[in-house]
Order: sequence, then C-alpha cells, then structure tokens
Amino acid sequence: MSRFFSEKYKGLDPYTPGEQPKDMQYVKLNTNESPFPPSEKAIAYAAEAAKSLQLYPDPECSVLTEKLADLLGVDKSEVIINNGSDEILNFAFMAFCDKNTPAIFPDITYGFYPVFAQINNVPYEEIPLQKDFSINISDYIGKGKTVVIANPNAPTGMALPLSDIEKIVASNPDNVVIIDEAYVDFGGESAVPLIKKFDNLLVTGTFSKSRSMAGARLGFGVGSKELIRDLNAIKYSTNPYNINRMTAAAGIGVLEDEEYTRKNCLTIMETREETTEKLHAMGFETTNSKTNFIFAKHESAPGELLYTELKKRGVLVRHFKKERICDYIRITVGSREQMNTFISALEAVLEEIK
Amino acid sequence: MSRFFSEKYKGLDPYTPGEQPKDMQYVKLNTNESPFPPSEKAIAYAAEAAKSLQLYPDPECSVLTEKLADLLGVDKSEVIINNGSDEILNFAFMAFCDKNTPAIFPDITYGFYPVFAQINNVPYEEIPLQKDFSINISDYIGKGKTVVIANPNAPTGMALPLSDIEKIVASNPDNVVIIDEAYVDFGGESAVPLIKKFDNLLVTGTFSKSRSMAGARLGFGVGSKELIRDLNAIKYSTNPYNINRMTAAAGIGVLEDEEYTRKNCLTIMETREETTEKLHAMGFETTNSKTNFIFAKHESAPGELLYTELKKRGVLVRHFKKERICDYIRITVGSREQMNTFISALEAVLEEIK
Repeated sequence: MSRFFSEKYKGLDPYTPGEQPKDMQYVKLNTNESPFPPSEKAIAYAAEAAKSLQLYPDPECSVLTEKLADLLGVDKSEVIINNGSDEILNFAFMAFCDKNTPAIFPDITYGFYPVFAQINNVPYEEIPLQKDFSINISDYIGKGKTVVIANPNAPTGMALPLSDIEKIVASNPDNVVIIDEAYVDFGGESAVPLIKKFDNLLVTGTFSKSRSMAGARLGFGVGSKELIRDLNAIKYSTNPYNINRMTAAAGIGVLEDEEYTRKNCLTIMETREETTEKLHAMGFETTNSKTNFIFAKHESAPGELLYTELKKRGVLVRHFKKERICDYIRITVGSREQMNTFISALEAVLEEIK
Repeated sequence: MSRFFSEKYKGLDPYTPGEQPKDMQYVKLNTNESPFPPSEKAIAYAAEAAKSLQLYPDPECSVLTEKLADLLGVDKSEVIINNGSDEILNFAFMAFCDKNTPAIFPDITYGFYPVFAQINNVPYEEIPLQKDFSINISDYIGKGKTVVIANPNAPTGMALPLSDIEKIVASNPDNVVIIDEAYVDFGGESAVPLIKKFDNLLVTGTFSKSRSMAGARLGFGVGSKELIRDLNAIKYSTNPYNINRMTAAAGIGVLEDEEYTRKNCLTIMETREETTEKLHAMGFETTNSKTNFIFAKHESAPGELLYTELKKRGVLVRHFKKERICDYIRITVGSREQMNTFISALEAVLEEIK
C-alpha cells in the first residue's frame, strides 16, 4: 500500500479469483465456466457491434433490459443490467448496508461477500452452515440485518426451496434480502416471482454460467422499482456506461436463443449426475448439487492432495484452504469428454496414492 | 429512493450523461465521440474474442497492459486498465480521498468529479476558473488536498503546459494529484513521463476519444507501482473481472494500429481549426481548444437557443445550464462532412433569429 491509501481501507483483503494458469493447456474445471461456446447469435451480434465502437453504448441498455424483463416475467423498471454479478452485489452492499445496517451471510459461501462488506465499511456476521452444509433458515428469520444468501450456495452447490427463501424475506420486512442466483439455472428455484410480493427482495443473476458468457461480463439485479432506482443511483454516480456495446449485443443474442441455453443446462445437469455416480463408486461423498459444479470429498484422500495431483495430470479443480471444507474439491461440470478425462486422471491419482 | 437506501447517500445527485435520443437520426456532436470507425484490427480481434466468451477474461489484462505500458514508456506495474476512465477516476477518489483528505478541482470541469466526491463521502472544494476560463495554478500549489485536474479541461478545451502540471505535483508531495487526460491526444502535453519523478502523480486516460472506442469502455491509470497497487486493491475488492474479453482484444488491436490513431487525431485537429475559423467569421468567440471539441459563444445568440434550434435541424450539440458557461455551446469535432452540415444548420439558425 502506498502512503496515500485511505486509512479506511487498511486491512482490506481483496478477493482471489480462481487461478488462470498460462503455462500449459489444462482441462479447466476450476472456475465454473460453461464447456459450451456462446450462442451463435451472441457471437454474431457482438461482432456486428464491434463495428460501431466509436459510439457510446446506451447507458440504460434499453433493448437488453426489456428482453430480459420479458423472459423473467417482470417489468423493465424492475431490472438493472450490470458489469458482471460482482458489480451488482457490490452496488447492493453500497446501497442497502452501512454502519447501522450490518450484513449477515453463511460462513461457507461465495468468498466475495466479506470483501464487499469490508470495502464498504459494513459490519458483517458469518453464520455457520449446519454440519451437513445446509442453511438453517431460522438463523435468518427476523434478523433486522441485510441478508445475503447464494441459492444454490457455492461451493456447496446445495439449494434452499423457494418456500424457505420466502420465509426469510417475509420475516425481514425492513431489510433487503439479497438472493444471489448465479447458479439457479442448473436445478434451483428462482425467487424472481417473489419480487411482486416483497419490496425488500433483490435477486441477482449472471450470464456467466448457463449462458456461456463469463468473458462478456453481464450480470443483473431484479427487484422492486424502488430498489432498482437506488441501484441505478449508484451506477449513475460511479460508472454510467458500465456495459459496453458488444456485451449488450451478445446478451441480446443469447436471449433470442433461449432454447440453446436450456439445452446446455440439461446436458450439464445430466453430466453432473453421471459424474456424481462415478465419484460415489470411487469412494467419494458429494453434496446434493443443483449447480454446474460438484463438491466432493474422498474417504481417504485429502482435498489438497487431490487438487495437486490432478493438476500435475493437467486437470484443474478448485480447492479451498478453509476449515470445514479443506477436505473437499470443487469440480466444474464440463463436457462429457472433459469429465471422462477428469475421471481417468482421478483414477490414476487414487491408484498412485493408495 | 427506497426506504432501504443507505442514509449516507441521501442527497446524492447522479451524473447526467449527454443525451442519446432515439427518435431521429441526428448529426451527433454532443458527446465527443470520434467520427472515425474503430481500427480494423480492433474490430477483427473483438469479433474473434466473442467466440470464446464462455471463458472468464484475464483479470490482469496482461497482454493489453504490457502493450499500453510499452507505448507510454512505463513499466506494466505502473499501469492499470479500467472499465472506462470514469471507473479509474472513481477508484482514485475511493483510494486517495476521504473525510480527512478532501478533493479540490475547478468549478468548471468534468461534471462527474463532484459526483465521485459525493458518492465516496469526500469533502470537496470547487475552485473558480479565472475569467478567461484558465486555471490559475497558484490555486493548486501546496494545498495538502487531493488535486484533480482535467488537462486539457472540459468543456473549455483549454490546456495547461506540462511545466505548470509539474509545479502543482511537486508542491503537493503528500497528496495525490490526479491528471485526467481524456483529451490529451488532440494537442495537449501528457504528464505520463513525470510519474518516474513523482510518486504522488496519477494520470488517467481513455480509449474513448482518440482511439474510437467509446463503446468498448476502456480507460487506464498510470502512476507509481504503489499507487497502481492501491487501485488494484480496490478493483480486486469490487469487480476483478471488470474488463471483458472483447474489449481487451479490441484494445490490443487498436494499439497495434497506432498509425491509424495518429492520423485520425491529426485530421480532427485540422478540422477543429477549420471549423473554428468559420465560427469566428460568423461572430463566435471560442476558447483555445486542444481537444476534439470546440467551446463557442455567439455575440448575440444565447447558448440554449442555439442548442434548441440546431436540434430542430437535426444537429445535436451540448449545452450546460450552468452559470458562467450557459452562453456557450460545446461542439464535438466530427468528420468534415458533419462539420459542413453543422455550419450550414448554424447559418440557417443565425439567419432566422437575426
């Protein structure tokens, strides 16, 4: 840190993204990317948009916002488009938390939540998941704090039913409840329909996973008109042109190709179940994942060893050096071919360390 | 505002971008966009990058950062790439200002500075430009505050010589001096070489104007390794993947086509001088612009009237409803053809209101 850095950020501990090694070609199962290319329409629209880059983008992303609102069954005034869902989550921490309105979220969840709290000087409490990694919803009932829950959760992959989400939202009427649905398209239940009933619910989503657009940076928030207006006040006070022309165009393209997205999600869910069965046969325990990744622990091989040995064999998975989950590895569900490579590499590893 | 919006943002007055009307085809001379299409290489690289959008971008923008550092004659550790220069400016307000370190900037300058100050709860002082709109550098000498100066300034277009910038930077050794060089490529002197001498200098730049990439959202900051590290701490605590794959690729493309950029800048500077002469002949007074826009006041027609009448005739310019400058219009320097259309429309307006 320089001698000029504001005192208020002393002790800041930035988020560490999943590794992106440049040294060799890996089977990359570590950052929950889609194994499928983006929609042909997304590619074509983005390429077309690149020809008029000399012009500013539409700060309101009008066309994309309307299309997304239609798909979600809400009004366009209930949607905000963002530069990745990290941005919308940061905006929500800015808008709906402060010194007097702390945040609460699980101890094992998306590692960025405590960072968003820190950078915004928001006090926060991390509530332990239960022993089986499930969320005890009574921990979040009537708290009078801003609640943040990833549903399905990461890296556990486990989902809460919509009825539980509704109980949490209903019991905190004077606080915003943020439901991060980055992984919802792989078997979760979306809380978006509840925004009509509750003015304190903000649902966030992303085009990174189910829509094969992690490289485009497109996230969104859905909530009451008033919540969206607040988030827009933050956007127009920090970076109004946060969405570039190509990303907006690609987003429109993929929404016009919803069948492709649905088909890919189905394939990933099938591949997830096939791979999970194989893992069970190899002595792994897994959580009940409703996402595009599998969270797995072997009966005898520790997570870090598996991670290291798989990496040597050209397969990257994610390992978290964190109490309670350090025995696990998180494996992105890739293509069937990638999963076969992973399973073969894993067999070799288990054979060797036996 | 919703009842959930944090108290600390009460009174926030978000930035208003230049209008982007959708009702008819205008000759758009109101947002300082380039009249030239992006470099062919930028378009081609972006289109290629669109094919692999399923993968996350490189959060470090390694290739682009190195290329830009080479062009600027600095080390890559002295450069940060951002999602437009608004983002880097906001990061700088976050990092280098706070309750105890207020900001100062001119009263007539980029309208976003007070907004960045407000959203970050930074006290600020707007220092009046002199009567001729020049910056009196003694106002910024040894202030013990974070200094923000657009050089050339907007919307006046006027530039300070590098020697004046150096005096300001040297006299505030314990505060960061931010020089916003969005328009430097049209005749200004860049302060980038000074970063080797002063650890308190941050220079910001953009690909929006001279590089025809307003629609791609690409800005950057240049400063000592320590300042850049602070700004990266902010980035990795808010939105590490802020630059999408297509924008990074387009940025690499345009940097490989530097001759195209230089040629376009020269054409714009020539067109600016030609148009300025015509305006003088029509009874306008102009500032000495070193940018891609002209700031002009007519001896008898007020700015707002000119703006309105030109709009009726399909030509958009920018007018600011702000004391001291409400008599002016700001005209982006477009292509020669666009400027001929503008001059013809202006002649018709002046004839009619005579």
